[in-house]
Amino acid sequence: MKEAEIVASFQRLFARQAPGLVQGIGDDCAVIRAGRATWLVTTDSQVEGVHFRRETTTPRRLGRKCLAVNLSDIAAMGGRPRYAFLSLGLPPDLPRVFLTSLRRGLREEAERYGVALAGGDTHRSPGGISLGLTVIGEAGSRIAYRSGARPGDALFVSGFLGQAAAGLKLSTEPNNPVGGLSPAYRRELVAAHQCPRPQVELGQFLVRRGYARAMIDLSDGLASDLGHLCRAGGVGARVYSESLPLSPALRAAAPLWGSSPEEMALQGGEDYQLLWAVPPALQESLPAQVKRHFGLVLFRIGEIIPQKRVLLKTSGRSRLLRFRGYDHFAAQA
Amino acid sequence: MKEAEIVASFQRLFARQAPGLVQGIGDDCAVIRAGRATWLVTTDSQVEGVHFRRETTTPRRLGRKCLAVNLSDIAAMGGRPRYAFLSLGLPPDLPRVFLTSLRRGLREEAERYGVALAGGDTHRSPGGISLGLTVIGEAGSRIAYRSGARPGDALFVSGFLGQAAAGLKLSTEPNNPVGGLSPAYRRELVAAHQCPRPQVELGQFLVRRGYARAMIDLSDGLASDLGHLCRAGGVGARVYSESLPLSPALRAAAPLWGSSPEEMALQGGEDYQLLWAVPPALQESLPAQVKRHFGLVLFRIGEIIPQKRVLLKTSGRSRLLRFRGYDHFAAQA
Repeated sequence: MKEAEIVASFQRLFARQAPGLVQGIGDDCAVIRAGRATWLVTTDSQVEGVHFRRETTTPRRLGRKCLAVNLSDIAAMGGRPRYAFLSLGLPPDLPRVFLTSLRRGLREEAERYGVALAGGDTHRSPGGISLGLTVIGEAGSRIAYRSGARPGDALFVSGFLGQAAAGLKLSTEPNNPVGGLSPAYRRELVAAHQCPRPQVELGQFLVRRGYARAMIDLSDGLASDLGHLCRAGGVGARVYSESLPLSPALRAAAPLWGSSPEEMALQGGEDYQLLWAVPPALQESLPAQVKRHFGLVLFRIGEIIPQKRVLLKTSGRSRLLRFRGYDHFAAQA
Repeated sequence: MKEAEIVASFQRLFARQAPGLVQGIGDDCAVIRAGRATWLVTTDSQVEGVHFRRETTTPRRLGRKCLAVNLSDIAAMGGRPRYAFLSLGLPPDLPRVFLTSLRRGLREEAERYGVALAGGDTHRSPGGISLGLTVIGEAGSRIAYRSGARPGDALFVSGFLGQAAAGLKLSTEPNNPVGGLSPAYRRELVAAHQCPRPQVELGQFLVRRGYARAMIDLSDGLASDLGHLCRAGGVGARVYSESLPLSPALRAAAPLWGSSPEEMALQGGEDYQLLWAVPPALQESLPAQVKRHFGLVLFRIGEIIPQKRVLLKTSGRSRLLRFRGYDHFAAQA
């Protein structure tokens, strides 16, 4: 069975409706109402041999990343992360210094984003390191779901795309032709994969100010996640090749694999940038507002259309954008 | 490193205090206040080769148990389980019928206890099946912590002990001398290990009525968990050998391994019964109340004493009760 099939079979198991459950499975977080508070809950794991290899990352980065990918889900709904619960599976042979660095990474990431590690369990894991995190966040008075996009909305992303996919290639392909890549570019791309920065404050800002009518974090890749956003909203999208945010590092690296940087930006996963839909009246003011508050340059990559398809427009010609979901059951980290 | 050492090193990582965090790591659940609601959160995993073997249990029982062990933590604080989040790691080669039965077990357990499966993630797990659950429960106006026991309190448990340890032996030791054991006893003991029944309703009743001043669920074994209860409360305990709840099945099985049933009841883990401390004024009325509401016979096994030690009294003679915590890093399931 393919992951998509397995996931679908387990999704039928999940509750669509239950008292207090505003949103079950199917968005970046579950949404739960408790009295006047609204909570966001997300679960994600990093498993050795599937999501990472011990030889190609550092335990400190691993500690940070396992928390970061969950914080990114909270960010995608505009929430404030509050509490984290860690399920830690460890092989019996891990050196003490590895555990010390892993703890350091977890602590750094938790402190940086104001998250309290509030519980967890530790168990032996013969198959390799397994880091399961559940993060509870607090929603403000507004929440951005995947489903809110409307035709005419502009699509924005919060940073460069394809970086993490290139970084993964660089760190795991022993014979890749990286001779032509500067050490600085190499470091930048590898860090993008191993050390993603969840856009937590930006997510809160966008939702609070009404700038994000629908939002998702880019974990599977732009093509795939934009597909999720469109399906959830019953809409489609048009993306402009020329507007894809491509870093100089990616432009230098992609040709080394015979890839185009545009293709890597569209298909590459794990960038953990935000993708969101902005209503017409706010499209002009948004970039300057974000520049002022966060010193961050946004990228406007396209718009929502009523036709239920995702199109890529290149030099005036449109084509249907196909995407491959990242299949953990087929692919190797 | 031993599990205790690893767990201790990670416990230092966890937040003792954070806004809204009433209880961090160190009890059966974390306790979080959100407005007027108080939530209980617990995380526990079932990992192939550590907590179970695929050959010796059924996928349906596995599905039930991975939820049950978490519900038991909610029960131990008197809470009502509400939402579950599943992190599911699957090897690529699992037959479809296995997944169907696993889902069935999860669904049955969730429905039985009124829990909504509200989210999760699915990933490939090359080392074997891994079932990580985080359960959120709702606390009533009272909560039973581990720390509330006072000298003079009576110690009660909710059912037979040592059953699960005997069941584990029966299901995993291929050459065990079970010839002398009736099939019914064998089934009873194996079911106790593979199909524990979390005492959710009893836990709520005990806490709501003030019957449980301190409580813990028996996952590591009576000796070990009573040690946790005493340490948390700054007290000690005296347990009477003659009062240990031993089933006829355990009495029949223990001698086959050259063990005493008392020793198995004291040291065996995973019974998932409740252990709690009852204030003096309520000790007389409790058993009849529980019999009336739940048709359940309780066992009074000893009492809390001011001296910080755990004593076992057998035929009038006391000895210090030693315990081995179950070490997942040393032991094999």
